[in-house]
Amino acid sequence: MTFKGRDFIEITSFKRSEIEYLFKIADKLEPVARKGSDILKGRILACLFFEPSTRTRLSFEAAMLRLGGDVIGFAEPAVSSIAKGESLADTVRVVENYADIIVLRHPLEGAAKLAAEFSSIPVINAGSGSLSHPTQALLDLYTIYREKGKIDGLKIALIGDLKYGRTVHSLAYALSYYDVKLSLISPPQLKMRREILEDLRRSGVKILENESLQDVIETSDVIYVTRIQKERFPDPTEYERVKGSYKLTFDMLSNCKKDLIILHPLPRVGELDPKIDSTRHAKYFKQTYYGLLVRMALLASILGAI
Amino acid sequence: MTFKGRDFIEITSFKRSEIEYLFKIADKLEPVARKGSDILKGRILACLFFEPSTRTRLSFEAAMLRLGGDVIGFAEPAVSSIAKGESLADTVRVVENYADIIVLRHPLEGAAKLAAEFSSIPVINAGSGSLSHPTQALLDLYTIYREKGKIDGLKIALIGDLKYGRTVHSLAYALSYYDVKLSLISPPQLKMRREILEDLRRSGVKILENESLQDVIETSDVIYVTRIQKERFPDPTEYERVKGSYKLTFDMLSNCKKDLIILHPLPRVGELDPKIDSTRHAKYFKQTYYGLLVRMALLASILGAI
Amino acid sequence: MTFKGRDFIEITSFKRSEIEYLFKIADKLEPVARKGSDILKGRILACLFFEPSTRTRLSFEAAMLRLGGDVIGFAEPAVSSIAKGESLADTVRVVENYADIIVLRHPLEGAAKLAAEFSSIPVINAGSGSLSHPTQALLDLYTIYREKGKIDGLKIALIGDLKYGRTVHSLAYALSYYDVKLSLISPPQLKMRREILEDLRRSGVKILENESLQDVIETSDVIYVTRIQKERFPDPTEYERVKGSYKLTFDMLSNCKKDLIILHPLPRVGELDPKIDSTRHAKYFKQTYYGLLVRMALLASILGAI
Repeated sequence: MTFKGRDFIEITSFKRSEIEYLFKIADKLEPVARKGSDILKGRILACLFFEPSTRTRLSFEAAMLRLGGDVIGFAEPAVSSIAKGESLADTVRVVENYADIIVLRHPLEGAAKLAAEFSSIPVINAGSGSLSHPTQALLDLYTIYREKGKIDGLKIALIGDLKYGRTVHSLAYALSYYDVKLSLISPPQLKMRREILEDLRRSGVKILENESLQDVIETSDVIYVTRIQKERFPDPTEYERVKGSYKLTFDMLSNCKKDLIILHPLPRVGELDPKIDSTRHAKYFKQTYYGLLVRMALLASILGAI
Repeated sequence: MTFKGRDFIEITSFKRSEIEYLFKIADKLEPVARKGSDILKGRILACLFFEPSTRTRLSFEAAMLRLGGDVIGFAEPAVSSIAKGESLADTVRVVENYADIIVLRHPLEGAAKLAAEFSSIPVINAGSGSLSHPTQALLDLYTIYREKGKIDGLKIALIGDLKYGRTVHSLAYALSYYDVKLSLISPPQLKMRREILEDLRRSGVKILENESLQDVIETSDVIYVTRIQKERFPDPTEYERVKGSYKLTFDMLSNCKKDLIILHPLPRVGELDPKIDSTRHAKYFKQTYYGLLVRMALLASILGAI
Repeated sequence: MTFKGRDFIEITSFKRSEIEYLFKIADKLEPVARKGSDILKGRILACLFFEPSTRTRLSFEAAMLRLGGDVIGFAEPAVSSIAKGESLADTVRVVENYADIIVLRHPLEGAAKLAAEFSSIPVINAGSGSLSHPTQALLDLYTIYREKGKIDGLKIALIGDLKYGRTVHSLAYALSYYDVKLSLISPPQLKMRREILEDLRRSGVKILENESLQDVIETSDVIYVTRIQKERFPDPTEYERVKGSYKLTFDMLSNCKKDLIILHPLPRVGELDPKIDSTRHAKYFKQTYYGLLVRMALLASILGAI
């Protein structure tokens, strides 16, 4: 099994066995996450962010730096030649001469795939369009694996914007590698797309769509809450209508499982009561730490250092 | 005396003896300021700048890099998740997983304090609101100590915007650790706030408020000039009225003390005649160099490397 | 011959023999371009970009990092103190305390020269105003030297915006060190300025101004195409008139020399048919790789490491 030189465009770019092998690497890199290392000394990561992001960009940068590598890039298209009208294919064919690996975030579907087709160095998709965000799915899965010790057999609820939220799409596909029960809770306008549901069912995932929120809270092992992403709505009035229409509060957890864990891709803007933060269920900040480990594993593996 | 793991939120977070100990460390780190070192190899500084800054941000970044560490962060909130509505407390609890220390600049009073309360890694305040900018005060004090050999016994003048300028507030508190005479010169609308004056007087600082500018120039050992900061004025017409109402010119220095030093936190926009630049009194560019040393001392100490 | 501590403001800052010596250094640094090194360990480059740029900024940053150095700076003036009204001279006198070398891009003619006059550390001009972009000229020349094995005796065509395009101005002066025939093709409004033409002729360059585009394509050894830069036009309607008025297509190359090479400073926005990308003539992406080598040579030499 080798990751060297491979792109990571969709969660399905890697098989289940490969994902689990990556998790073992992430486990082993844990000491490096605080102390640093020389594993990728002399290597350069190009972070090309055509959309703003704190978490994902800083996470990749920290991962690269902890491994001893360096980072170049831009955090928004305005400061790049894109403002001059350059195509993504051209940007990639320039940047591949400056770096060893590209991490790309882009507002358009398929942007990462296109970049990978033109690039002679590996490309990691850090979110493109509203459909895929595979490294987020990887870290979500890793969080479950670390916190629950297993993924098979769990009941997992996805709550919130299941239509435009790219993290839930990638996560749903990631979970389809496993034997899980999936509860879907969302406002009617934000239901998960039919074609994704069909893909999931074909993979054997058991999907529960009509439970009450309270039932889901009481029976789930993992609850994954997402932000309603204003920027994904074609129509702002549609956003205003559903904003705040679901919210997980502290009181709602009174009858939940003792070892329930609550995840969130962050940032949150009101859908997760801050009172939950101090409960044993809250794992959304820990999740960002696991994300660092997973991204370190990804960079080190693809660059052939492990 | 240990700095390891401590926050630096206000100049009064450190005692006089601690500040002077830091100065000794800064002295010792002087060779590192040009040659670099491996003192903080593998460590990561997160620079979270919610307001623009050249000097402070580049100074901290250079300090970290000279010490052998690395830097992540953002230079303005637009490129971060803040644009998506994330709270500062959440940002901090994410970033603490990526870095070993946070340097924060923020437009709101109390932001650094709040960040420190939520962060498990040390937080350094790089300016928050119009009240505090403690690392600037530290470097101002260090400049006086380096250039005059002492601080006690000096006559020091603060000229300009004493109401909204956060650097003078922190500096005034820093000077209250010492036996100094403080001359305050400002337009009536920009006088230093009463509660700060009272704090200073209680600490034994002798404050002179009604001298003429020319008298102050002729009797001071240190003159500290500040920019009128447009962005601090609630009302733009108030700004237009006082802009340019005081200015230090070359000619005004004809009867000053031979060893007078002139400081300025920079940037300046007209309140300091460029003709002064080439005089022996001008120390405002040297001041930025001392700032690098002090920030190196701060980072190395708080990260427990010294 | 030493480069240590020198500024690089115009292509004519260096003699022909110095440029060729730099090329030898660039040749030797080729292994470092992929593997990295410790040649500039502990050194800091300050990238001060008062205009957006992907290519030039990332190229310099990658060059510095591959040499083992570090980078600070800003990618646009909005995030810097310039927004507060600071003068370039002041910015430089601050930044020189944080770094070992400055790379400056600025919209105004003469900005790099001014910066160098005030700076105690070396300054490299990464493009200022519409007249000069000497490191681009250096890499253009290096590309020709690498791809053709020589520069003397070649017929070289410059096509496009010869009035506002700063890269062609610097390249033309660079070529005047050599025995070349220069074909100039541009819309009438975008002809090369008379004073530059006179300089070139005085240096012995043979200039051909009235050939047909097709003749030029068939007789040239090197074709250098430039983008019409919207941001250089004082009047937007003038831009709309010439935009798209010339374009190099695949079909136009049917009778070109077998070993013709086509260069472009990039980004392109339509003046170079993507169908050309896969021909042996297309060297514009390779050009960015050569740029990395040349900039590594420049940084290492000026910092006295080679």
